[in-house]
Amino acid sequence: MPVKIVPVLLSGGVGSRLWPMSRTEVPKQLQSLVGAESMIQATAMRLRESGEVGAPVVVCGVRHLDRIVGQLAEVGIEPAHVVAEPVGRNTAPAVMAAALVLDPEAVMVVLPADHVIADVDGFRDAVRIAADAAGQGRLVTFGIVPTAPETGYGYIEAGPGGEVRPVVRFVEKPDAETAARYVASGRFLWNSGMFVFRAGEVRAEIERFAPDVAASVAACMAKSERAGRFLLSESFEKAPSISFDHAVMEHTDRAVVVPIDVGWSDVGSWSTLWEIGDQDENGNVVVGDVALSGVRQSYVRSGGRLVAVVGLDDVVVVDTGDAVLVTSRHQAQDVRSIVDQLTGRPEVERGAD
Amino acid sequence: MPVKIVPVLLSGGVGSRLWPMSRTEVPKQLQSLVGAESMIQATAMRLRESGEVGAPVVVCGVRHLDRIVGQLAEVGIEPAHVVAEPVGRNTAPAVMAAALVLDPEAVMVVLPADHVIADVDGFRDAVRIAADAAGQGRLVTFGIVPTAPETGYGYIEAGPGGEVRPVVRFVEKPDAETAARYVASGRFLWNSGMFVFRAGEVRAEIERFAPDVAASVAACMAKSERAGRFLLSESFEKAPSISFDHAVMEHTDRAVVVPIDVGWSDVGSWSTLWEIGDQDENGNVVVGDVALSGVRQSYVRSGGRLVAVVGLDDVVVVDTGDAVLVTSRHQAQDVRSIVDQLTGRPEVERGAD
Repeated sequence: MPVKIVPVLLSGGVGSRLWPMSRTEVPKQLQSLVGAESMIQATAMRLRESGEVGAPVVVCGVRHLDRIVGQLAEVGIEPAHVVAEPVGRNTAPAVMAAALVLDPEAVMVVLPADHVIADVDGFRDAVRIAADAAGQGRLVTFGIVPTAPETGYGYIEAGPGGEVRPVVRFVEKPDAETAARYVASGRFLWNSGMFVFRAGEVRAEIERFAPDVAASVAACMAKSERAGRFLLSESFEKAPSISFDHAVMEHTDRAVVVPIDVGWSDVGSWSTLWEIGDQDENGNVVVGDVALSGVRQSYVRSGGRLVAVVGLDDVVVVDTGDAVLVTSRHQAQDVRSIVDQLTGRPEVERGAD
Repeated sequence: MPVKIVPVLLSGGVGSRLWPMSRTEVPKQLQSLVGAESMIQATAMRLRESGEVGAPVVVCGVRHLDRIVGQLAEVGIEPAHVVAEPVGRNTAPAVMAAALVLDPEAVMVVLPADHVIADVDGFRDAVRIAADAAGQGRLVTFGIVPTAPETGYGYIEAGPGGEVRPVVRFVEKPDAETAARYVASGRFLWNSGMFVFRAGEVRAEIERFAPDVAASVAACMAKSERAGRFLLSESFEKAPSISFDHAVMEHTDRAVVVPIDVGWSDVGSWSTLWEIGDQDENGNVVVGDVALSGVRQSYVRSGGRLVAVVGLDDVVVVDTGDAVLVTSRHQAQDVRSIVDQLTGRPEVERGAD
């Protein structure tokens, strides 16, 4: 009998570096930043229900619940379960909550809802490999074959092996020199935050290595409002805010890594959208009603109005109904600083349209 | 009896370098780019009707006539005459048309409607000096005491003198080296395009040095629609398109120059608006709902929506209801290139609101 694969979509990201598209009420995973679908739609469509794949479980903020269910319905996907968090508590509590609503034998494929993967077939192949390992009791993490010495990601050192390799260690975001050494070594992979394991196994490992997470989540699984929906009680805010990597993967001896090279991106900033976008002969990525003169290596996005850029290189211009952002590709990480300045304003909190 | 001074407001500019505020239907002189009034309102208010100053004459494009009359009414000014041009033909035909509707003894003070003058009292003093010279039969031009070796202006070489100096020669826009020499010499002034002379005198000089201009304008002064309004007939398009400097001032032996140092600007581009604007401690000029982080030496203007700029220096960002311009202060002259690309689009032709 084939293992039953259940996608678990984690919609916990805030995406403030992708303001003004990403808003508190409509964060980046609910936006169509790449292609026509929103990122959570694209993530759900990557592993559609089939003989071996079941309907997904969604873990999301309670304020996004209706919008997410609506977006998934638009693409013909009905979640098996939705777990709504009153507050965000990072990935370890989210994974625990998902594990609690699933059959212990179900193989969870934990996918942040705000990642982009270009090679979907390659990704599906990797999921099958990972699911087999999970069926043998492994906790699998996907490691991205690095394309550059990024300092913005954590790394995984993999031991020798084939499609499934042992994890030697997890390392935090390195400095530039260390990152270059990692990439040159061929042994290091980017830590993607995507995992595959059986629900029963991961529950046991969380109980073992993060008993406070396990207990606090188990205590606040409230009665479902309707079939398949779980609203975590307010006491969820007492759960430790900790990543699943820190809570479990760095401690368990069951961890393995499946290296993947499938055009992955976490769409961390506007600079990333320029990198993965369709660049024209001047290296510009344009979306919507845009006019350029003497512009190179830039990302320019119109939300409807005419956006004209003259005589600048390496800039990011993003227009929405109620706000415009202008920055440099090299400063795109700092967009968060302006969002912090603007906390409470509707242009940050609410949707743009 | 004091001479009767009549301001003549020339509203012929297109102002495409100030897009997206300046539009074909509502060019820069009808916009509030500096302060609360539009530039034509501010120009008219600079020489208000008084004992020695009469109501102004306006020469404008026919498509702007109603809007201009409306804007002047808002500030309590009713033109004595309005001459509406079916097409723009530069300043020599416009000056001729104004001269034809005035008493020959009237002293015309010809003012482009899109200039800014900070020191209005100083300017009024200079007008009185120039009007006296005009009353003695001189054709007076105002020469701006240069503050920098600008290559974007023509220059006037002035002979020795006091408040009124002889014109040695007019010179075209110089290269940077020549401009630096001009400014260092102390003898050269920027050619402002503002003039003072009696209507009868200038008419005679135009007839003498530019008889084709004089004849073609005289031939198409159509019957006024109503009192004080003249709609030039379609044949006006046959008038030579030539500046008053080229047509008359460079040839007449009656030319004199009154140097002025009154905070003049022709508001030629967004870069100029940064220069004359109220710079904060980071050298930024901001108008409206603007949020900045790590930005210096920049001009950022919101037309209502939130405009956020992060980590850039020396940029110009101008937001209007239907368009956004992003450029560099150093490329602000090139805005015209994008306007040329966009000819025919409503965001260029029509008003922004």
